[in-house]
Amino acid sequence: MKFAGTHLLVDLWDARNLDDPEQIDRTLCEAAVTAGATILHSHFHHFTPNGGVSGVVVLAESHISIHTWPERNFAAVDIFMCGACDPHLAIPVMQRLFQAGRIEVDEQRRGRVQL
Amino acid sequence: MKFAGTHLLVDLWDARNLDDPEQIDRTLCEAAVTAGATILHSHFHHFTPNGGVSGVVVLAESHISIHTWPERNFAAVDIFMCGACDPHLAIPVMQRLFQAGRIEVDEQRRGRVQL
Repeated sequence: MKFAGTHLLVDLWDARNLDDPEQIDRTLCEAAVTAGATILHSHFHHFTPNGGVSGVVVLAESHISIHTWPERNFAAVDIFMCGACDPHLAIPVMQRLFQAGRIEVDEQRRGRVQL
Repeated sequence: MKFAGTHLLVDLWDARNLDDPEQIDRTLCEAAVTAGATILHSHFHHFTPNGGVSGVVVLAESHISIHTWPERNFAAVDIFMCGACDPHLAIPVMQRLFQAGRIEVDEQRRGRVQL
């Protein structure tokens, strides 16, 4: 089985520090580099009045995105990476900031072809 | 069951028009609006030498991302929308451009809580 990339859907529950777009931007960029990825662009948006953050880091190897709901202590992250990166390495870097009580990870292989 | 949003992972096979970032940007923005979403930001990157495109549209209701491999006629799209949007409505808009021979859609409910 050959595939184009690994896509992790990561749900963070009972999480903290979900309302600071600059801190989240820095953390996701550090997570991307830790996973072996190259950053091309990042953009983060801060919602009012709930303080939620939506943002994305576009990578040479695909992307990381995040959407946070501070009022529910919940964040939905996805980490899509192709090539030699290991997207699983991004999760502990994020966990240092978000300190989630529970993390659910769903792993999808994108672009699978039978060889 | 209550959930924060619907996340569609859409793999497009035998697809066309995968190497023009401006055309893909316009199409994904039109797809977002058709699904009922509000666009906050979009960014597209054009890779050389293969012509692949990576990009994202950040929405008030989450995001749409795309990564294309023109040399394989393959694109990996994800459409994550919360609120009253219907992310399924975005797919026919994309299909007008990409004319994929085969489309695989995986639907994930993000942030599920038992009520």
